[in-house]
Amino acid sequence: MFMCTGYAAQSADTPLAPFSFERRDPGPADVAIEILYCGVCHSDLHTVRNEWKNTLYPSLPGHEIVGRVTAVGADVAKFKVGDVAAVGCMVDSCRTCPSCRQGVEQYCDNVFTGTYNGADKISGGHTFGGYSSHIVVDQDFVLKVPANLDLAAAAPLLCAGITLYSPLRYWGAGPGKKVGIVGLGGLGHMGVKLAHAMGAHVVLFTTSPGKVEDGRRLGADEVVLSRDADAMARHVESFDLIIDAVSAKHDVSAYLNLIKRDGTLVQVGVPEEPLPVGVISLVWKRRSFAGSIIGGIAETQEMLDFCGKHGITADIEMISIRTIEDAYARMLKSDVKYRFVIDMASLGQAA
Amino acid sequence: MFMCTGYAAQSADTPLAPFSFERRDPGPADVAIEILYCGVCHSDLHTVRNEWKNTLYPSLPGHEIVGRVTAVGADVAKFKVGDVAAVGCMVDSCRTCPSCRQGVEQYCDNVFTGTYNGADKISGGHTFGGYSSHIVVDQDFVLKVPANLDLAAAAPLLCAGITLYSPLRYWGAGPGKKVGIVGLGGLGHMGVKLAHAMGAHVVLFTTSPGKVEDGRRLGADEVVLSRDADAMARHVESFDLIIDAVSAKHDVSAYLNLIKRDGTLVQVGVPEEPLPVGVISLVWKRRSFAGSIIGGIAETQEMLDFCGKHGITADIEMISIRTIEDAYARMLKSDVKYRFVIDMASLGQAA
Repeated sequence: MFMCTGYAAQSADTPLAPFSFERRDPGPADVAIEILYCGVCHSDLHTVRNEWKNTLYPSLPGHEIVGRVTAVGADVAKFKVGDVAAVGCMVDSCRTCPSCRQGVEQYCDNVFTGTYNGADKISGGHTFGGYSSHIVVDQDFVLKVPANLDLAAAAPLLCAGITLYSPLRYWGAGPGKKVGIVGLGGLGHMGVKLAHAMGAHVVLFTTSPGKVEDGRRLGADEVVLSRDADAMARHVESFDLIIDAVSAKHDVSAYLNLIKRDGTLVQVGVPEEPLPVGVISLVWKRRSFAGSIIGGIAETQEMLDFCGKHGITADIEMISIRTIEDAYARMLKSDVKYRFVIDMASLGQAA
Repeated sequence: MFMCTGYAAQSADTPLAPFSFERRDPGPADVAIEILYCGVCHSDLHTVRNEWKNTLYPSLPGHEIVGRVTAVGADVAKFKVGDVAAVGCMVDSCRTCPSCRQGVEQYCDNVFTGTYNGADKISGGHTFGGYSSHIVVDQDFVLKVPANLDLAAAAPLLCAGITLYSPLRYWGAGPGKKVGIVGLGGLGHMGVKLAHAMGAHVVLFTTSPGKVEDGRRLGADEVVLSRDADAMARHVESFDLIIDAVSAKHDVSAYLNLIKRDGTLVQVGVPEEPLPVGVISLVWKRRSFAGSIIGGIAETQEMLDFCGKHGITADIEMISIRTIEDAYARMLKSDVKYRFVIDMASLGQAA
């Protein structure tokens, strides 16, 4: 075991604060990583504040991790000391169920091991995430980052990026397809960039007139203000695919009606309350309302390579871990363009 | 033009009553049919009582039609006088949009012409359905009934049958697949028979303990009482496909949770109110919640041929058209096993 430092919450109503803890020494298949950057995901906030009622304390979040390899186990061939390495939302899975065998570990029948707040099968207890100095992860769950990408701006690819990439690929976004992205936040802005790079005709839906210009800059061919009924009506029955990244309760039937026969509306934002769905919107054009969560490890590597090829990273605002609670407050107001990333060098300064 | 008799409603609050009206003489592409049997669909009741707020009066419903050809136009090669012929929910469509060109006229971009209450492009006014002595339909929308099927019991195949057949085929029901059917009524009982004949493992969900035995008789491998939480829990994440034929508001998330990764819940019952859908049920296993409406003409013929091959018809209760209002009252109480069919010979006796 070796000592690490990080920021953790001790309970739902205490702020994140410096925290020292032990991680396992790397085993034969493990990669030890010094964390350089960690993106800030809304799930981090949900978890530390126990908003999903399943948080184990101390809670140390973070699952958009980029760092440098400091040690590797004897069986590790993929990485060597000094390499850049990345870790996303999973650090393990059962590896034996059909989903794991098919490379979609995110749907593991026995539930994947979350990078934080997961049951740690190797060390016991629960997992601690990326708001920390180091992490030790089985090589099968460690990703390579293309050399041309800015490391800080690449961190959000590990959750926000793959969350959009996977459904765009699964439902066939590409040339000749009209793809909508609902909501321009951490997830949505990755959706616009990725769908554009895949060659689709991309339409961004936003409630914010102030985001129209940004939407176009990020790659949207069109931006529709979703409260403008006339603008919405002009797109009726025209989309092959819409990916909805909004986590608040909202009217999904308005988007379903914009979808062509046999098209799909995919929810990647997860509102707490059930969403009302007008069945007539589904039956009338054989539409589907679906959901998707992150992506498998092989697909996450494919996404990183795709981003390397197309020069795609997130638009980020770098912060010190000392200001994480301020960042959460701003995130709650959607006051970030478009993802906070913690510069983990600030951890040493804080500790 | 020639005179026909039928039963029509003059307004939303008057009962169906004898009605005389004219139909066009058959044109070059038309088939004139003396109607022998017409199934009774819940849509008939919704329409005559203006429950969808779009009814044109007089309203003469009926779209599960089996009869005998009495005349054919000069260009008709497919049918000759004396042949058995059938008509379902559509009598025309635009024939030029992508959906029509691809043989899925039920999703016609310009809206198919309903067999009743549709805008009649040939004769003007609105269409009159199968609660009548005769009907005249373009040959492209007239179906052939396999010779081995009972004609009265075949009538419900034209709506209830195709409504289940089409989604079962589209979403791949067959050997090795576990398929659920929710609700044992006119639609659901066809779903059980068809899915069984396709070779799927069929599970019927019903709220009625009294329907368990019937479910098995009709072809279900298992019958689950949907109010039995333990029985439901035993099927979690095990279905490839569930087809939900319930038109009342109900908890679809309970069924979504029974579906495997990448599986689909298809709604063919159309509740008036939006259904609340738990997004977490969708994202957690990349499930889809979809809808489907009847089927195209070619697929309807395929379904009839499939039913001929497997000896499948509906379980029916034959009625006189004079008792149609009583049948509606019983239908509202789900007191029919499982479809009423009007013996149109009763029309002559009534007129």
